[in-house]
Amino acid sequence: NEVRIGGFAQTGWKSQGGSRQDSTVETDAQHRALLTIDGKFGKVYGFRIAPSFANTVGILDAYVNANFTEFFKVSLGKLKVPFGLERIQSATALAFNGRAFPSDLVPNRDIGIQIFGNMSGGATEYQIGAFNGAVDNDAALRHGGFDINNNGIDFVGRIFSHPFRNGGLDILKDFGLGVAYSQGLQESNETAGNANLPAFHTPGQHIFASYVGGAFANGVRERISPQFHYYNGRLGVIGEYVLSRQEITLGTATHKVNNDAFQIQSSWFVTNDNATFRRMTPRNPFNWSAKTWGAVELVARYAELNIDHDAFTAGFFNPSTSARKAKDIGVGINWHLNRHIKLQLNYHHTTFEHGAADGADRPDEKVLFSRLQIAF
Amino acid sequence: NEVRIGGFAQTGWKSQGGSRQDSTVETDAQHRALLTIDGKFGKVYGFRIAPSFANTVGILDAYVNANFTEFFKVSLGKLKVPFGLERIQSATALAFNGRAFPSDLVPNRDIGIQIFGNMSGGATEYQIGAFNGAVDNDAALRHGGFDINNNGIDFVGRIFSHPFRNGGLDILKDFGLGVAYSQGLQESNETAGNANLPAFHTPGQHIFASYVGGAFANGVRERISPQFHYYNGRLGVIGEYVLSRQEITLGTATHKVNNDAFQIQSSWFVTNDNATFRRMTPRNPFNWSAKTWGAVELVARYAELNIDHDAFTAGFFNPSTSARKAKDIGVGINWHLNRHIKLQLNYHHTTFEHGAADGADRPDEKVLFSRLQIAF
Amino acid sequence: NEVRIGGFAQTGWKSQGGSRQDSTVETDAQHRALLTIDGKFGKVYGFRIAPSFANTVGILDAYVNANFTEFFKVSLGKLKVPFGLERIQSATALAFNGRAFPSDLVPNRDIGIQIFGNMSGGATEYQIGAFNGAVDNDAALRHGGFDINNNGIDFVGRIFSHPFRNGGLDILKDFGLGVAYSQGLQESNETAGNANLPAFHTPGQHIFASYVGGAFANGVRERISPQFHYYNGRLGVIGEYVLSRQEITLGTATHKVNNDAFQIQSSWFVTNDNATFRRMTPRNPFNWSAKTWGAVELVARYAELNIDHDAFTAGFFNPSTSARKAKDIGVGINWHLNRHIKLQLNYHHTTFEHGAADGADRPDEKVLFSRLQIAF
Repeated sequence: NEVRIGGFAQTGWKSQGGSRQDSTVETDAQHRALLTIDGKFGKVYGFRIAPSFANTVGILDAYVNANFTEFFKVSLGKLKVPFGLERIQSATALAFNGRAFPSDLVPNRDIGIQIFGNMSGGATEYQIGAFNGAVDNDAALRHGGFDINNNGIDFVGRIFSHPFRNGGLDILKDFGLGVAYSQGLQESNETAGNANLPAFHTPGQHIFASYVGGAFANGVRERISPQFHYYNGRLGVIGEYVLSRQEITLGTATHKVNNDAFQIQSSWFVTNDNATFRRMTPRNPFNWSAKTWGAVELVARYAELNIDHDAFTAGFFNPSTSARKAKDIGVGINWHLNRHIKLQLNYHHTTFEHGAADGADRPDEKVLFSRLQIAF
Repeated sequence: NEVRIGGFAQTGWKSQGGSRQDSTVETDAQHRALLTIDGKFGKVYGFRIAPSFANTVGILDAYVNANFTEFFKVSLGKLKVPFGLERIQSATALAFNGRAFPSDLVPNRDIGIQIFGNMSGGATEYQIGAFNGAVDNDAALRHGGFDINNNGIDFVGRIFSHPFRNGGLDILKDFGLGVAYSQGLQESNETAGNANLPAFHTPGQHIFASYVGGAFANGVRERISPQFHYYNGRLGVIGEYVLSRQEITLGTATHKVNNDAFQIQSSWFVTNDNATFRRMTPRNPFNWSAKTWGAVELVARYAELNIDHDAFTAGFFNPSTSARKAKDIGVGINWHLNRHIKLQLNYHHTTFEHGAADGADRPDEKVLFSRLQIAF
Repeated sequence: NEVRIGGFAQTGWKSQGGSRQDSTVETDAQHRALLTIDGKFGKVYGFRIAPSFANTVGILDAYVNANFTEFFKVSLGKLKVPFGLERIQSATALAFNGRAFPSDLVPNRDIGIQIFGNMSGGATEYQIGAFNGAVDNDAALRHGGFDINNNGIDFVGRIFSHPFRNGGLDILKDFGLGVAYSQGLQESNETAGNANLPAFHTPGQHIFASYVGGAFANGVRERISPQFHYYNGRLGVIGEYVLSRQEITLGTATHKVNNDAFQIQSSWFVTNDNATFRRMTPRNPFNWSAKTWGAVELVARYAELNIDHDAFTAGFFNPSTSARKAKDIGVGINWHLNRHIKLQLNYHHTTFEHGAADGADRPDEKVLFSRLQIAF
């Protein structure tokens, strides 16, 4: 039996222009910390509790798990829903300051149960689960963000495989691909706060599109996401596509709304280090007296989010305040001093279709992030 | 010298009907976590600090203690007031999702000093204390909930004894009974937020009665609570009665208001396990490969809360919005996988006298709780 | 490599009269706790993360440091700005419940980098740093309190020396004196929340002066602070003076506003203990059976804060709501039971010039603080 405390802290700035009509540059400091308390009882059972300190304080994870065999593990409680590829990636291992557009359309944390495990000697992983059915990208830190008004359950399944891990082309050993699917019922109502519909955020964390008042989730929600990653030496690539489809009612009309997003991101180590999906460990950690400097990584990504054009026609969105398409180009440089300390600097340029008065385009968003991350 | 970290996390749902006039069922997710940091300096001195993470984040306990002898111990700081039996019970050991009506009338946490200890070889315990005088059931997590406008102090005393522990009928060895008493002065004023009066909550955490605006505590507050518990093999029983009496002023009239509550609850282990007042340890912890399943417990309780009928006559309550009596029947099943993990499911049906428009009865409340608890 | 958890909790009361026109005495309970998580990686590198629990919950410190040599150390992240003497002192070592007026004019926490170290065998310390430029006395716990609308950086330098530590008069061995200086640009605007101007607080934590709406920081900010301390046996003395000068715009006029403050405080141990700038350790910790009682200390201070009279003439302050001078006399008694537990009782009497309607003086503030502190 043991209890282990880990976690991370992030502190940095966001400098942003263009989200207002004038040329003002806004600069905000951003802090976040997460404590993780992990326990093990014997060889099989364990738990995690993770209080989060950011603008909203709350419990991010609270679950128990049982690792019966490599193939058969169970988690129960409040946990990350096994769906989006970049969402599943640890917050400490992200190439950029924030996740890309697909994470706007996938579940974040939810209450439920997950059965999961590995097959083919670790080359393939699967997760299947049943969850409460949180709104897209809702971490459920607060009661209020998490209420549901339905009796439905979200069923989620995901499989991800490295087909060449156990032989075949060595260059493709760390190529993995998979797909995730979820289905559930969301029957809410038009009362304010009960709509159970998400809003859509720019990289600079401004809302660029949201459903009009009175619209509410009212029927089946399905999501599907093909996804892959590839790591080879200094190079890393992640790609994912998400389609999130929900039946939505406004007044007497109900429509199926199809929103989708994709991203492709690439990272490349300038130093002689290996790219990985997990938190990386520099070959030569920063050490002043030994004159070693850690690892330096260049990153780039392109991402798009498309809101169903028919949803604009049906009046679910107001084209003067909601953009129907957003495209984000991001570049960055990360300096990993050692396994525990990372400095990040990245820049995003996002363009929009519509979203401003008289059918004009919402002005471009330009945002620069800097961050110091301590993980322990 | 040592510092030990413990605590618990709870996550679950509340599904509730009847509290609105229509047939809507509300479902809320509920999360809570508590960290406890306990220190010991040598053999005598120690402290506890307990940050709590729930909808309100704050410091639940912050006190030092000195265990000079078994008979003479002292605690000083912010701590649980030694009064209500179920309030004194650890949150991880409760038979139900929430405490019963008597806990609406007893103090929760308060700032003060407590002298306490054991007599008769541990068969009898006593506590005497002097406290700031928090409002009934106020955990004082926030400054605002804790302000006082008086110079009074609450004196509290409690004695609880197991008369047959040291001999006599073996079947009554774990029968204990006792009484708690408190007295203090509450002189507040009619300014909003300064009334120093409690509100009364249903098992589903809705307020079913509260004093009208302008009423305020203005004089002596006394509480008395006879209480007992009984444990024998698989069976456990807890019973307590509380009378809370306060002088209250509205306009030019001052009345002594007498509210009281009682509960009786019983638990019975289906598995071959022993009931206890503390957090239980299953004889055969859950283990898939050994085919052992932990402990399963059935629980039932009945509780009533009566608000002084004369207080309605005197206008301290509005009968169209406050009920004058609430009766709660609760049943549940608890599955203790091991000492650390518990799954709870319980159901409450609560009926009310008055509390709705035109003298009608407030509709019955029906609420189903489920919970996962991790204690470490 | 190791991670160490420390921190402190404080709980107590504030009883206050005179801040209202009537004779009401307000009593508030006050709680605060800080966890500090300190890590070391090898001999050189480390970090600190400190979540704070008070009325506002947030991350107080989050930084990494590298101790290359005694003379050359670096901290990077969110940390205490090396400026005010009493601000630099640990919260657990303060003679009074709160810091004196000079801390209203100095930076608290900020994001930035600091290079620091010791010279002359530890007799002299220096810090130089570059920071984001937080408003005076802002701990930056929340995003909102920390936004900036400029591209400027605050440069800060401080040197503090004990000239007689390495020889000379033994009685002056623990006499130290120094000076801190900061300079930076603050260019904000008149939008509410963007003024980047501080408010000024009484010892009882009421605001006694604040800039009028529409005024905003718009130009160079300079601060200078000569400071000293002296410890000899039972006696301790701290003194500091701060001048904070900022260019401020209101409408079309821009003025340089000069606010200053000073304090002198003295502490004296009744018991045979040594005064120190750090958290003290009683020679004979409290122990009931050994009949030893810990350490008892008497403390007194005088402090003044002066707001630039020309700033009143220029209309930056409203003399009916802002006082232009505040004088605080404080006395107290502290009982250190051991290194970890302290009981504090202190009383402040503060008088004001102007600040009430029709040019009258704001009523005197009289406030009594009690506190229990647990540090671990």
